[in-house]
Amino acid sequence: MTKINKGKLFGIGVGPGDSELLTLKAVKILNEIPVICSPRSAPNKESIALSIVNPIIKKRKDFKELTVLEPVFPMIEDPLSLEKHWDDASELIAKSLNKGLNVAFITLGDPSIYSTFSYVQKRLEDSYLIEVIPGITSFAACASSIKKPLVEKDDVLIIIPKIKENLEILMENSDTIALMKTSRNKKELENKINHQIREKEIFSVENCTMENEKIIKGFPENKPYLSTTIIKFKK
Amino acid sequence: MTKINKGKLFGIGVGPGDSELLTLKAVKILNEIPVICSPRSAPNKESIALSIVNPIIKKRKDFKELTVLEPVFPMIEDPLSLEKHWDDASELIAKSLNKGLNVAFITLGDPSIYSTFSYVQKRLEDSYLIEVIPGITSFAACASSIKKPLVEKDDVLIIIPKIKENLEILMENSDTIALMKTSRNKKELENKINHQIREKEIFSVENCTMENEKIIKGFPENKPYLSTTIIKFKK
Repeated sequence: MTKINKGKLFGIGVGPGDSELLTLKAVKILNEIPVICSPRSAPNKESIALSIVNPIIKKRKDFKELTVLEPVFPMIEDPLSLEKHWDDASELIAKSLNKGLNVAFITLGDPSIYSTFSYVQKRLEDSYLIEVIPGITSFAACASSIKKPLVEKDDVLIIIPKIKENLEILMENSDTIALMKTSRNKKELENKINHQIREKEIFSVENCTMENEKIIKGFPENKPYLSTTIIKFKK
Repeated sequence: MTKINKGKLFGIGVGPGDSELLTLKAVKILNEIPVICSPRSAPNKESIALSIVNPIIKKRKDFKELTVLEPVFPMIEDPLSLEKHWDDASELIAKSLNKGLNVAFITLGDPSIYSTFSYVQKRLEDSYLIEVIPGITSFAACASSIKKPLVEKDDVLIIIPKIKENLEILMENSDTIALMKTSRNKKELENKINHQIREKEIFSVENCTMENEKIIKGFPENKPYLSTTIIKFKK
C-alpha cells in the first residue's frame, strides 16, 4: 500500500511530567502539527500527556485550529475489549492521515517503553509513515529527583512493570530494580522485597518532576497512579 | 559544611547524539551557565557530549567567555588509577564552584545510568548543591530508530552493560534485553545469545540518532564505541 500523499504519524514521548523535559524535537513537531492524538483513560479524566504539552501548544497562533483527538484507552484487563479500543483509536487517527494530515500521538515517558503508542503503531505501520521521538523515562527522571545514580559500571538494571513469580530470581540477579506503577500491588511487593535477604536501599517517587512530586524512603504512601520505586542492592 | 555562596553543580544528560534530543531544561541551563565540564576519554579525543551541546552554546552571545573544563576520564580498568582521575576532575569542578560559579557537567544519555557523572556527584554532593537533569537514554533512542516497541504490558526489560556469568538466567527471565556498548565483547555475546534456545529478534544500532546512524538486523558489524543491541524474545 502506498504511503505517499498520506499524513505521517509521529509517536512522541513527552517525558514524566515537567513540560521542560520535552525535547527540542518534540517541541518543534508540536509547534507545527495539525492534529494531536492524546488518549485518556476515562471520558471525564484529563490526559496527563496533554497537560504536559499544553504550555507549548497554547502559545501557537493557530491553537484554535488545532485538532485534538482524545480516544479512550480504559485501564481494563480484558484483551478483546482492549483490542476493540485500540482498533477504534487507530481508525480515528487513520482518518486524519488519509486526509494528508500529520498526526502527533503523545505519550507519557517514552513511546517504546510500556506505551499505548505501541498498539497504534502496530496497526498503522504497514500503511503510513511513522517516526518515533524518544522521551525521558520515568525511572531516569526518578533517579534524577532522588539524586542517586541508578546504575554504574557493570551493574544490571531491571525494569519491572508488574510483579510475577520470577521476582525473586530477578532480585538475585540485578543491582538495581525499577518498579513501575508500584502503587498497584504495593502490599504484595513490600512482602516479597522485604523477604529478600540482600541489603538494599528503597526509594519511591510519586508524581515525579510534577508540582506535587513526593520522594519517599521506602514504598509509596498513597496510591497515586504515577509512582515508581527504585531498589538498589548493596554490593 | 555550608553550601551557601557556592556555585551549584548541574548533571545534565545530553541524550544519545542528536542535539534536537536535548530537553528544554538542559538548553535553558546551557544558555546561562558560566562553566561547562565535559570529560573526554583521551587528551586528543573530542568529547561526544560537547559536540552535542555545541550547536546550542555556540549561539550564545557570550560564547567566548564560557569556560569549558575537559578533564580526561580514560577508559581503563585499574580502579586506583580511575579514582585518581575522578578525584582530580572533582577538584577541578570544585574550584569553579568555590568561586560561586555554577557548573554544568554534561554526559551522554542520562546522568544516572552508567554515567561518569556518578563519580563526580558522589565526591561533591556533601559540599555543594546538585541538580540532575535527566536525558534520553540510548536504549530508548534505539527503539525509536528501529521503530519497534522495547517493552509492552507486563514485559520485563533488562539493561546489561557487560556480559557476566548470569547472562543465561537473565535471558530466561526477561522479554527484552538491551545490551550497551555491544561492540566491546561481540564474539562472546553472539555465541552465548545464539545458544539460547528462545526464539528472538536481534537488532543493533550504531551511532544512534547521529548522522552516521546504522541499523543492523543482528549484531554490530564494525566496532563503533556507541553501539547498542536489542534482543526481543518471542512469547
